[in-house]
Amino acid sequence: MRRLTEDDVRPLALGCAVLSTGGGGGIEPEILATARALREHGPVPLLTLDDLDPDALILPLSSIGAPTVADELLASGDEPAAIRRAVEARYGRPVTAVMPTEIGGANGVAPLGWAAGLGLPLLDADGMGRAYPELQMVAMHVAEIPPSVVVLADVVGNVATLDTVDPGWAEQWARALCVASGSAAVLADYVMTAGQAAGGVVTGSVSRALAIGHRLAGATDPVPALLAELGADLLVTGKVTAVERQTAGGFVRGTVTVGDVVIDVQNENLIARRDGVVLAAVPDLITVVDADSGVPIATEALRYGQRVSVLAWPGDPIWRTPRGLAIAGPAAFGYHLEPA
Amino acid sequence: MRRLTEDDVRPLALGCAVLSTGGGGGIEPEILATARALREHGPVPLLTLDDLDPDALILPLSSIGAPTVADELLASGDEPAAIRRAVEARYGRPVTAVMPTEIGGANGVAPLGWAAGLGLPLLDADGMGRAYPELQMVAMHVAEIPPSVVVLADVVGNVATLDTVDPGWAEQWARALCVASGSAAVLADYVMTAGQAAGGVVTGSVSRALAIGHRLAGATDPVPALLAELGADLLVTGKVTAVERQTAGGFVRGTVTVGDVVIDVQNENLIARRDGVVLAAVPDLITVVDADSGVPIATEALRYGQRVSVLAWPGDPIWRTPRGLAIAGPAAFGYHLEPA
Repeated sequence: MRRLTEDDVRPLALGCAVLSTGGGGGIEPEILATARALREHGPVPLLTLDDLDPDALILPLSSIGAPTVADELLASGDEPAAIRRAVEARYGRPVTAVMPTEIGGANGVAPLGWAAGLGLPLLDADGMGRAYPELQMVAMHVAEIPPSVVVLADVVGNVATLDTVDPGWAEQWARALCVASGSAAVLADYVMTAGQAAGGVVTGSVSRALAIGHRLAGATDPVPALLAELGADLLVTGKVTAVERQTAGGFVRGTVTVGDVVIDVQNENLIARRDGVVLAAVPDLITVVDADSGVPIATEALRYGQRVSVLAWPGDPIWRTPRGLAIAGPAAFGYHLEPA
Repeated sequence: MRRLTEDDVRPLALGCAVLSTGGGGGIEPEILATARALREHGPVPLLTLDDLDPDALILPLSSIGAPTVADELLASGDEPAAIRRAVEARYGRPVTAVMPTEIGGANGVAPLGWAAGLGLPLLDADGMGRAYPELQMVAMHVAEIPPSVVVLADVVGNVATLDTVDPGWAEQWARALCVASGSAAVLADYVMTAGQAAGGVVTGSVSRALAIGHRLAGATDPVPALLAELGADLLVTGKVTAVERQTAGGFVRGTVTVGDVVIDVQNENLIARRDGVVLAAVPDLITVVDADSGVPIATEALRYGQRVSVLAWPGDPIWRTPRGLAIAGPAAFGYHLEPA
């Protein structure tokens, strides 16, 4: 069984940044916090679904909020333990493993440190295979696993246990609390057994992020290495000539222009166009990387004049199913694109 | 032991409207719903704290939201049962009695129907002795009883269980969920034992509202009868010449002008002034009634040209304590008045 140590944190974070499509939060604060947690609590076993008893309870964890805020309002560190207590009280039994709800960005890294702090193993899977901005945009929802109870904890120490009638209401209520708490909180949703999770999560996500990170870190010619590792297309290499960005309602929204390519953003990069023609669109992954180092640049770190490459590649096949497209395709973000 | 029947609903509602100081929601929809509940489920025993075992669990219930919305978005009727289930699951034992959190307006009436539907007695007490717009503005908070868990249910069927670090956060989170659910929800807070409640609630509120309602209904000269029953001052009798009102953030805010008296409103009537001089201010009760019938007019029902009388009288002594004033005096609403 693979055990993740402090040395895995930076490669994992690099890979998560690539999979973040610009969202999921800046990775640097999370690298420090996660490395410290592993140093303090020791290595974390990385398990597959097959390693778990079908009745084992999985605790999917993520941060919710605007990444621009997450860089400034740091978590207290007590949120995962508070969430675990509430979940175990509710289910009347212990949780067995932590799963990142979202492998993209800081949300892919933090659960490793949280697992260390909780003394739990990490599941090699996630709910997206990337980053997405809303709670219901997860493979579990595509597979019709109920969100069950949503447990949300904020930096102040407040804990909410939400029983909602559907995933849309789970998103709406969790977002409202997140905004009331300064647009930053940690939450668990889609608490499920290993048996339920089979077929309803994206498996191998943690290993994949690690592989991407290692390939990028070891490459002499980073952008081509990344294109090969991801099976991605290079949309453009050029200068950032415009960044429009607002933080509102718990989201970062705006557009980024690189050469003749314009990218629409809602926390994540959603659509890339040239002269109005769509080059790539969710569920495709669109990631902006430094043209020299290949290091991904999060939406909130993009600045006028940076020289970047824009990469795009297909998302997990679950997002190309009719239900997957309905939940997190272009229309779910208000875009009505002509079929390609 | 007194048992409340369908015949008590209208007098109770009239009294609650007088104690509402303009807030707490319009009483007419609540009269119909409460009378129906009593017809269907039978009379409800009205108990005092002395009738309860010191360990008996009290369930304080109220609606939260903007009264202007409550008139249009009716409750589903399932909220109290959902809240009771969540509270009993949390405390691991049954609740013994329902208490109106707020005796003012619709919030003073609805708990009678909810008690009937739940098959529980009603406690002759409340948390305010009037209406107030925010959750932490209750005698329980003045008496330093913790809000404990807040359970909130909306019309859709969503249920939140909130463990907050202080009453201010309970208000902030409950308000955020209320707004997300269309500015209307039902909630329980300050769940407590009868032993805890002694000294931390306003006792006799339900009887008092009934007495006010009966006196008003039976009077040949209603306004003087009301002034005598309440021990109130008549601030002015005249025409409504201006009504400024906005619904925002889950509240109704604005000003009402009657003759030469201007009343500031935040769901409830907060301050009455003549030529800038304060005539009455929270925790004083300020109620606008029809000049002929003496029937109170809720903030959202005030219209240009109505002929009204404005009455003011002192609130429960708990609100005149330093802690009471800090929690729900003028400064709590952003007013910094010179001491009288």
